[in-house]
Amino acid sequence: MIKQVAGVAVALLLSAAPAFAQTIYPIDRADILAGAKFDFKVELPGVVDQAKLKVTLNGADYAAVFGQGGTFTAREVGREQSALLLRDVSLAKPGQVAVEVSDGTQSRTVTWTVYDTGARKARNVILFIGDGMSPSHRVAARILSKGIAEGKSRGKLAIDDMPHMALVATAGSDSIITDSANAASAYATGHKAAVNALGVYADRTPDPLDDPRVETIVSLAKRRAGLAVGIVTNAEVEDATPAAMVAHTRRRAAYDAIVAQYFDAKPDVLMGGGSANFLPQSTSGSKRKDDIDYLARFRDAGYPVATTASELATLAAKADTRQLLGLFAAGNMDGALDRKFLRGGGVRKFPEQPDLTEQVQAALTVLSKHEAGFFLMVESGLIDKYAHLLDMERAVYDTIMLDNAVRLAKDWAKARSDDTLILVVADHNHPNSLVGTINDDMTTPNVPLRERVGVYEKAGFPNYPAPNAEGYPSRVDVSRRLAIFSASLPDHYETFRPKLDDPNEPTVKGDQPDSFKANDKYKDVPGVVLRFGNLPAMIGASVHSGEDVILTATGPGSERVHGSMDNTEVFRVMVEALGLGAEK
Amino acid sequence: MIKQVAGVAVALLLSAAPAFAQTIYPIDRADILAGAKFDFKVELPGVVDQAKLKVTLNGADYAAVFGQGGTFTAREVGREQSALLLRDVSLAKPGQVAVEVSDGTQSRTVTWTVYDTGARKARNVILFIGDGMSPSHRVAARILSKGIAEGKSRGKLAIDDMPHMALVATAGSDSIITDSANAASAYATGHKAAVNALGVYADRTPDPLDDPRVETIVSLAKRRAGLAVGIVTNAEVEDATPAAMVAHTRRRAAYDAIVAQYFDAKPDVLMGGGSANFLPQSTSGSKRKDDIDYLARFRDAGYPVATTASELATLAAKADTRQLLGLFAAGNMDGALDRKFLRGGGVRKFPEQPDLTEQVQAALTVLSKHEAGFFLMVESGLIDKYAHLLDMERAVYDTIMLDNAVRLAKDWAKARSDDTLILVVADHNHPNSLVGTINDDMTTPNVPLRERVGVYEKAGFPNYPAPNAEGYPSRVDVSRRLAIFSASLPDHYETFRPKLDDPNEPTVKGDQPDSFKANDKYKDVPGVVLRFGNLPAMIGASVHSGEDVILTATGPGSERVHGSMDNTEVFRVMVEALGLGAEK
Repeated sequence: MIKQVAGVAVALLLSAAPAFAQTIYPIDRADILAGAKFDFKVELPGVVDQAKLKVTLNGADYAAVFGQGGTFTAREVGREQSALLLRDVSLAKPGQVAVEVSDGTQSRTVTWTVYDTGARKARNVILFIGDGMSPSHRVAARILSKGIAEGKSRGKLAIDDMPHMALVATAGSDSIITDSANAASAYATGHKAAVNALGVYADRTPDPLDDPRVETIVSLAKRRAGLAVGIVTNAEVEDATPAAMVAHTRRRAAYDAIVAQYFDAKPDVLMGGGSANFLPQSTSGSKRKDDIDYLARFRDAGYPVATTASELATLAAKADTRQLLGLFAAGNMDGALDRKFLRGGGVRKFPEQPDLTEQVQAALTVLSKHEAGFFLMVESGLIDKYAHLLDMERAVYDTIMLDNAVRLAKDWAKARSDDTLILVVADHNHPNSLVGTINDDMTTPNVPLRERVGVYEKAGFPNYPAPNAEGYPSRVDVSRRLAIFSASLPDHYETFRPKLDDPNEPTVKGDQPDSFKANDKYKDVPGVVLRFGNLPAMIGASVHSGEDVILTATGPGSERVHGSMDNTEVFRVMVEALGLGAEK
Repeated sequence: MIKQVAGVAVALLLSAAPAFAQTIYPIDRADILAGAKFDFKVELPGVVDQAKLKVTLNGADYAAVFGQGGTFTAREVGREQSALLLRDVSLAKPGQVAVEVSDGTQSRTVTWTVYDTGARKARNVILFIGDGMSPSHRVAARILSKGIAEGKSRGKLAIDDMPHMALVATAGSDSIITDSANAASAYATGHKAAVNALGVYADRTPDPLDDPRVETIVSLAKRRAGLAVGIVTNAEVEDATPAAMVAHTRRRAAYDAIVAQYFDAKPDVLMGGGSANFLPQSTSGSKRKDDIDYLARFRDAGYPVATTASELATLAAKADTRQLLGLFAAGNMDGALDRKFLRGGGVRKFPEQPDLTEQVQAALTVLSKHEAGFFLMVESGLIDKYAHLLDMERAVYDTIMLDNAVRLAKDWAKARSDDTLILVVADHNHPNSLVGTINDDMTTPNVPLRERVGVYEKAGFPNYPAPNAEGYPSRVDVSRRLAIFSASLPDHYETFRPKLDDPNEPTVKGDQPDSFKANDKYKDVPGVVLRFGNLPAMIGASVHSGEDVILTATGPGSERVHGSMDNTEVFRVMVEALGLGAEK
C-alpha cells in the first residue's frame, strides 16, 4: 500500500517517489474555487480491473459527488496503464476534500481545499504582469525615470506606490523554476502546472491538447458574472502569458490551437503581436499550418481589427466599439527603446506600433462600455525576452513602459471612485542584478573593460540625460551607465556596452545539434571579452530564476495581498474581489 | 550664483555638479527627527571672509536658531577652504527648513524636513538585519527548512509571515551601491551616508573621527526614553552593521575607536565576535594598537562577560544580570553549517559558540528586566560574508538561522500581548540567484560540469534530507542541490560543489599590488572550471548589488511599512513606534 505522502521528509524526495503510485489531477493540496470547472483524472500505474477501482471523495463515490461517471480506459494510448477521466466537473461546497483512489492493491489519497468567495467587492480587476520583471529592472527603472540625488529617489514608481505588497512564490508542479506558461497559468486558474503547460495539468499522454483542464478566470468572469474580458500584451498574443488567460494545452508552442481557443473564448479585447498565426498558410508571412483565416473569422464575429496605433485610437474612440482585435506585428511587437528612440528591431517593418499605454487606454475605453464590469490582463512581455538576451537597457525601458501603463490605470480607477482592483506582479524572476555602473571615463582606454565596472563608492550615480515626459532618457549610451549583469550565462561576447542597432543576440546555433555558441557578430567590438557561461550548451540565453516575485496591489480586495503567497493565491485574490464563487 | 539644485535633470548629473558649490551637512532633503542631535557643517569651496558669511534657516540667522554660534575655520586642514561647524544642535519644531548659505558671492540652499512623532505605540522594538540577505537566500531557506511538494511550500518562513511589507531602497549619499556601513547607518540614524561611513556625513577632511555626526536610535532611546539597548550579531561586534547602532566614524575599519565608542555608549547587551579588539595589544591574539583592556573596563562597569554558549545561558539566567557582554570569537563567529554540521571555519578554535537563537533568547531575558522597554538590533551577519565568498550553502543556512531567531522573537512578543514592533530587513542585496539545481546524476561523468546545471523543468526539486527540528537538512552535498550563482564574479575556480571543509575562498592575493586571482586550492577538483570574472582585478569577491531589499514587519507601528520606502524611513518607523520625538 502506498499511502498519502505527508510531512517534509517525504516531500523533499517527491521527485524520487515510486513510479507506480497513482497520479490524481487536480494534485494534492490543490485549492479549488467552488463552482469552477475542472477535469478529474486518475492515472493508474498499470492495467487495473475497472470493477476493483474505487474512487471516493470524502468517502462518497466520485460519480455520485460529480453527478457523472468517468470514462475508464483500460489501456491508455495503447500502453499497460489504465486511466479514469471526467471532464468539466465542479464542487460547490467549501471544505477539505480527501480524494482516495484504490485499485484493490494500491491506494493513494490527495487532499483538496474547496473555497468559496464572499460578495463581489470590485467592479473591475486589472492584472498587470511584468514578464520576468526583476528587482534589478525595478530599481533601474526608478533611477532612470525618476532621478536620484544623493541616494534619494526623486519620485516613486506607480508599480511601487501601492498600499499592499506580498512576495509571491513561483515554483511549478514539476520544478522550482517556472516558465511564463505555468507561471501565468497559476494566476489565471489558481492551479499549479508544469513548465510549458497552460490551463491544464500535464498528463502522461503525448497529445498536447487532451490534458486535464482547469477553468481560467476569463471563463469564470464571463460564465458566472457576464464580465467583459480584455487581454493586452506587446508580445505575441499567442505567447504564454496572454495565452494562459484562455488556453488549455500542455504545449505553449501550439500557436495554431491557441488562436482557435482565443476564437472560442472571444475575449472582448485582444491586442498584441502575433498576426502570423491568424493568417491562412497561403498568405505571405503566415505561420499557420492550415488555411483558416482567423482575422476574417474575428471580423465576421463583429470584431473590428486594428493593425496600427492610429487605427487603434480611431476604433477605440468609436461609440459602438465593444469588441476589438489589435494585431500590430507578425511576431512580438517592439519595445519602448526601439520604438521611441533607436528604431531597431522590428520597427523598420512595423513602424506604427502603439505603445503599451495606448493599448491600455484603448482597452479601458472599450471595456468600460460593458456595464457588468471587466477583467483585464496587461502584459509588458518583452522585459523577459530582453532579459534572456542580456539586453538590459531594453528590459529597463519596458519596465518604465509598464509603470506608465499602471499609472494610467491607477489614474483611470481613481477617477471612478476606486471600484477597480489593480494588481502588478511579475511571473518569475530573472537572475539579473545591478552591481554598479560602467564608467568609460574611469580608466585609460587600454585596460580591460572590466576595470571600468565601478562597484560600491566607485559606482557613483549614472549620467543618463533627464527623462522626457514619459520617463525615458533619450540616450542609453552615456559614459556612466548602469551595470546590470546576469548570474546565468551562455558562452557569449561581453561588450560592456548597450546595443544600439538591434536587440542583443548573444548566441547563435552551435556546431553540435541543439547547442548554441557565442555570436561572432560582436567579436570585433573593441575590448570585447569572450565569457564562458555556466549553463548547458543547449541553453542559448540567460534563464529564469526561482526567487519570489513582488506583487503590489490597490483597490477593493487588495487587502488580501500581504506576506508570503503562492502564485495560485493571486487567482484567489482576483476571484474573491469579483465574487466569482458558487454562491453567485 | 549657484542656486539650489532642483528637478530631475540636474539631479541625474549631480556627480558632475560644480566643484565650487558649498556643501551643507545634513544634506539636501534630509529628514530630521525633532529633538535629535546632529552636527551642522558648511564646507566652503574657497577661503571666505567670515564677516560676509551668512547662514540662515528659513531666513533666520543660524546662531539664533541653534542657540549657539559655530566654529569658523578660515583654512581648514591648512587648505584654501573655509568651514563652519556646530556640534550637537537640534531642531524642535516640525516643518520644512530652508538652509541658505551665502559667502557674499555664491549661495546655496538645501531643504530639510523636520518631523515629530506621535505618542509611543510600542514598548520594545526589535530590528532584525539579515546582512546581504537576498531573495535567492530567502527562497532557498524556505525550500530547505520547510520543504516543497509539487511546487507548493509546506510552510512559511517567520520572516515572510508578517502583516506588513515594503521595498526598501538602499542607495547611499555617494553611490547607487551601499556597503553595510552606510546601509545600517541609514536605519540607525535616518540619514543617508557614504560607503564606509557610520553615523556621520563624510566630510572632506582626512580625520575619520571628526565628521559631522547624526544621532543614533540607541542614543535617542537611552536619552529620551530611558530604554535599555541590545546589540546582537554573529559577526564581529565592531563590524559595520552592529557598529552603526552606536558609532560615529567615516571609516568602518576603525575598530579600536568603535570599541571605545561602544564603551561610551554602554549598550545594556552587546554580543558577537570580535574580542581581538577588546584586548590590549600585549595580549596574544589582540588586534588593538594600544594597551587598553576593554574587557576589564566593561567588567569594571558592571558587565558580566560570556565567552561560550554555556556561560551565556548561565549569566542570562541570573536574576541580577541587567547588562551583558558576550564575545564568543576573536573575529567573526561561525555560521550554522559549520557550527552544527561541518565543524569547519573557526569552530575548531571556538567550539562553544552560541547559536544566534541562543543569543537572542539571552538578550530578551536580560533586556526585558528593564521596565522602560528596549531597543534591540539582531544581525545575522554572515549571510553577507558567505555571499561575498560565493559560498551559497552557508549563506542559506544562516538565513534559516535568522528565521529561527525571528520566530523566537515573534513567539516571545505574542506571549506579551504584542507590545513589540518587530522588523526584519536586509541592508543591501547580493547579486545571487537560484537558477535551478545541480544534478550529479543528470549526465555521464565525462561531460563538462555545467551540463549538470538543470534549468526549467530539468531543475526539478532538490533532494536534501528532511530538515531537523531547527529547519536544517543534515547534509548539503546531495546529488541534486540548489544552484545559486552570482552575477558579479572575480576570476575563480567553479567547482559546482559545496565546500565541506572550510568556507569557500574563491580568490587569493594576486601578483600585482591590490589585485586578486583565482585560488589554486580548487584547481584540481575534478571537472573544475576556471571562470573569468566581470569585476576589476582589485575586487577579490562577489560584490553588493543595488536592488531594493525586503522589509517585513509586525506589531505596533508596523502599519507604517508599505509600498516603496527609503532606507532612512526605517529609522522613522522605529522612532515613531517608540515616540522618540520632541514632545516626549
